[in-house]
Amino acid sequence: MNPPPEDKSAPQRTQAASTAGIPFVFSAPSGTGKTTVCQHLRSLLPNLRFSISHTTRPPRPGEVDGRDYFFVTREAFEKNIADGELLEWARVFDNYYGTTRATVDAATREGADLLIEIDVQGAKTLRGMEFPAVFIFLLPPSLDELASRLRRRGTDAEDKIEMRLATGREEIRALPLYDYAVVNVDPAQAARDIAAIMQAEHHRTGRFSAPAEDIRGLLTSDD
Amino acid sequence: MNPPPEDKSAPQRTQAASTAGIPFVFSAPSGTGKTTVCQHLRSLLPNLRFSISHTTRPPRPGEVDGRDYFFVTREAFEKNIADGELLEWARVFDNYYGTTRATVDAATREGADLLIEIDVQGAKTLRGMEFPAVFIFLLPPSLDELASRLRRRGTDAEDKIEMRLATGREEIRALPLYDYAVVNVDPAQAARDIAAIMQAEHHRTGRFSAPAEDIRGLLTSDD
Repeated sequence: MNPPPEDKSAPQRTQAASTAGIPFVFSAPSGTGKTTVCQHLRSLLPNLRFSISHTTRPPRPGEVDGRDYFFVTREAFEKNIADGELLEWARVFDNYYGTTRATVDAATREGADLLIEIDVQGAKTLRGMEFPAVFIFLLPPSLDELASRLRRRGTDAEDKIEMRLATGREEIRALPLYDYAVVNVDPAQAARDIAAIMQAEHHRTGRFSAPAEDIRGLLTSDD
Repeated sequence: MNPPPEDKSAPQRTQAASTAGIPFVFSAPSGTGKTTVCQHLRSLLPNLRFSISHTTRPPRPGEVDGRDYFFVTREAFEKNIADGELLEWARVFDNYYGTTRATVDAATREGADLLIEIDVQGAKTLRGMEFPAVFIFLLPPSLDELASRLRRRGTDAEDKIEMRLATGREEIRALPLYDYAVVNVDPAQAARDIAAIMQAEHHRTGRFSAPAEDIRGLLTSDD
């Protein structure tokens, strides 16, 4: 798939916004088009980092180790779990998926926004531990369209597609867990919507730190 | 209050976002540059409506009745108060300022986003009545810069400028009342930040209504 063209309307961060990096948790039912939306996001927001998950599932055709996932053995993954190196992990369809603490810690330390692509199970875990992230859910336009996309992708047998659809329906029910819902009608538009969400979140009052000392003084004094 | 009638002619937002209009409360200390930011917003978002306040203060040079404010007499304003036609009103510096319910009701009915420019007193009143708006505060880069801007504007005598600065300091202390803080370093950038906030708010899960019946069904069923 070709990378999306550069977009001149890409939001510019400024000194006006919070300078601390924000982790964004990003989930979508299988087949919703999350990967394509992320490709558009990469070109819209060149400074956005992507948390790459570790998984024990085998790569699909075209997937690259260290770009799409870190493909690891079951033994290595289980050692990571035992060593407490995973922020969250889950077992889905007989495979492990997880996010290492190192990825998130590096972004936080360096003030970068981080997109953490994880499934609903992972998001539930992070919510449960009150992980300070903004949660975004990408939805298909409809369940019918989701089924069509999975069939068009042609990577799965019909029984596997049915399993993915059943999982997708369950995942969509978890939407209230998320802060934002974006419907993927057009991946470029969905990416712009997500970029707007990211830009807006930097202006949340709860994250605001005034650039000038004289204003910070007003906001911290009690009288 | 009557439920708004369905309006098939209402402006259509992308099917991916909430189609209901959102009221945005927008405040800034005097001299922060709110008017210039609003001019940029008008060209960025041609469908955004602006709630025009009623006031009893005299127009400043260049201000136009029905564009900047509705300039009304004290008698007319007090009749509006008595008739319950004002959503909020306040008396500031010996003058009345207020927002009529009619303005807000029309936007809500027609599915349009509405920017309600009001001062901190007005915003406090709306928060107190749990008015379902998103609250945005525009800040100057610093108090020093705010003082310079008020002096450069040249419309006020020094004692009035000092009064505005004292009021501005008090207003900035009310920032935690607001959902978002935008610093006006560059008015065009501040307008883009506000436009991103508006776009993002349409994707809030709490406002989300799935475009497809099959997904709405999932989100409303209990099992």
